[in-house]
Amino acid sequence: MQGKYRALWLNDDDFLEVIDQTKLPFEYATKVLKTTDEVVTAIKDMTVRGAGVIGSVAAFGIYTACLDTTMTCEALHVEAKKIRESRPTAVNLMWAVDKMMDLLKDSTNLKNDAKRYAIELNDAEAIESQKIAKCGADIIEDIMKKKNTGCPGGKTSINVLTHCNAGWLAVIDEGTALAPIYEAQKRGIDIHVWVDETRPRNQGASLTAWELTQSKIKHTIIADNTGGHLMQAGEVDMVIVGADRVSANGDVANKIGTYLKALAAFDNDVPFYVAIPASTFDFDIRDGVKDIPIELRSEDEVKYMRGVDSDGVIREVLITPKDSPAINYGFDVTPARLVTGLITNKGVCEADFDKIQEKFN
Amino acid sequence: MQGKYRALWLNDDDFLEVIDQTKLPFEYATKVLKTTDEVVTAIKDMTVRGAGVIGSVAAFGIYTACLDTTMTCEALHVEAKKIRESRPTAVNLMWAVDKMMDLLKDSTNLKNDAKRYAIELNDAEAIESQKIAKCGADIIEDIMKKKNTGCPGGKTSINVLTHCNAGWLAVIDEGTALAPIYEAQKRGIDIHVWVDETRPRNQGASLTAWELTQSKIKHTIIADNTGGHLMQAGEVDMVIVGADRVSANGDVANKIGTYLKALAAFDNDVPFYVAIPASTFDFDIRDGVKDIPIELRSEDEVKYMRGVDSDGVIREVLITPKDSPAINYGFDVTPARLVTGLITNKGVCEADFDKIQEKFN
Repeated sequence: MQGKYRALWLNDDDFLEVIDQTKLPFEYATKVLKTTDEVVTAIKDMTVRGAGVIGSVAAFGIYTACLDTTMTCEALHVEAKKIRESRPTAVNLMWAVDKMMDLLKDSTNLKNDAKRYAIELNDAEAIESQKIAKCGADIIEDIMKKKNTGCPGGKTSINVLTHCNAGWLAVIDEGTALAPIYEAQKRGIDIHVWVDETRPRNQGASLTAWELTQSKIKHTIIADNTGGHLMQAGEVDMVIVGADRVSANGDVANKIGTYLKALAAFDNDVPFYVAIPASTFDFDIRDGVKDIPIELRSEDEVKYMRGVDSDGVIREVLITPKDSPAINYGFDVTPARLVTGLITNKGVCEADFDKIQEKFN
Repeated sequence: MQGKYRALWLNDDDFLEVIDQTKLPFEYATKVLKTTDEVVTAIKDMTVRGAGVIGSVAAFGIYTACLDTTMTCEALHVEAKKIRESRPTAVNLMWAVDKMMDLLKDSTNLKNDAKRYAIELNDAEAIESQKIAKCGADIIEDIMKKKNTGCPGGKTSINVLTHCNAGWLAVIDEGTALAPIYEAQKRGIDIHVWVDETRPRNQGASLTAWELTQSKIKHTIIADNTGGHLMQAGEVDMVIVGADRVSANGDVANKIGTYLKALAAFDNDVPFYVAIPASTFDFDIRDGVKDIPIELRSEDEVKYMRGVDSDGVIREVLITPKDSPAINYGFDVTPARLVTGLITNKGVCEADFDKIQEKFN
């Protein structure tokens, strides 16, 4: 499997190639994206998804636009706008596009420069991911020692619950929420992951479970409804999730349903961590709960479900009455008061306006 | 459609006939249950489900056992035990079986007496459902007036969120949680229902949505993850759910995920009501969170999803990696402190030990 630990790469012909995440876990397939429109479509239809990977694809999307030999700086702004608007909630997308456009503003060789900057941006993300991994694994080790779980002679595995997918399919190179888990495995910690299914698109049941299977990490898939009961029963030692945008005051926009898990964690004294690279902060937004825009997606994602039948054929089935309407918000916002800490490339940070300013702005 | 407002009835041959709820909303079909084993299987595989209907089917199950002309009072105890143990969490099941066995203890004509008692039990349940309907609709009217919603000249519809299915498919005759909604419609209130999908078995997306469609009540299906966001956004005026068992102290066992919605309601000052007939109380359990047994069901209910394909064929598809394990708890317990009130056949009751004792024991 090419690109095992990357969700995207430049192929031998220097085109952007990505893992088609809509086919996982049933089929490993890739797509080559040769035009801006193909990049925009891949982001919109979630061929690629995950806050970091969307940003990475956007950066290479600017490069892809520059493959057109007639491209000018002015025309590139039009292409950049299309990419920037492909999804509304992920701030990394806007950040990556703006960063690329800023770097390219005086360029006299758009194609070469865009390629170099996009690669640099991605390599920087990979380094951030490694730092997040280490910071988060230190927290896992602390909890392990305190509770005598997950270590030789310990009571049980250490149980981490995660929502959606924030592994290497979501953020280069090892993800955000899953990065500390991969690092914990390297350190020999006995770890087990509760994988929220993450309806309606099932990124947990499909992508996270698939990633953990590839790395032979123990895990159990649960309906999104289950986390509260597990926490009540003492079966969850900590929660780690990723984020698509964190406001200046520490409110966290992440996949719809994250807020409910944060409430349950708070009610049961389970530590609730959010793992993010610095690019996830949106300092322009002071009150995340009020002001982060929430993406409204097609009702068909709720009404239809994709899977494989007994013959191995990928099929979509209708799971509701045909005429019942559905509504599909992609994200929710978890208030900072429910967040134990932000696991970042600069260490743990409280979800607090002053602390975030001090460390990141 | 026979039995439009009943999920079960005695057919012209005096056999128990039930709506096959596993086929809804795709197909309306019924099953005739002629032996105890068929009754037990129908409860286990969820051909029939819903706290009240399980109790009703159990009562008619005792009658079904008595169709065997060689049946004795002693032998009937063995049959009763099989029915009693078909599902562990629903207290109405145990209650109905015990009640029937008590009524039949001196019977000299088991078949005739069992038929009469089962019919009486069901008629009594239907009357309780009507009382719940009126009590709950009064609360809806209060909220409507206070918020100026749902009435002529009001701002919007009144928005009620419900989890799982507690309509007439679950409790004879109009359900518990849905009974006040049906009554509100009769009173001309402009009502809209947020229908939680209710993974893993999708009783909301299939059964509740189907019921509301039959009665032309406005509704929108949402992923279970969505309720928190809607409450934060002020889009939910109240929550009404049913219950499978309520302990003496007012803790509520209901479909897995109910606890998460109760937490979100509490966090956003949204009234959270639980609609139940008196038979749902289990006075032997003082601490519901600790002591109500939680049913563990097959992992396949999480891993496979049933729906109709584009040719109208009902199909089951695998939605996870084949080798990833899943776990499937059927219920969770919402602590009494999160419950605004119990909507009962004896009026509203606080979820509090003394208040419950006073009214019901």
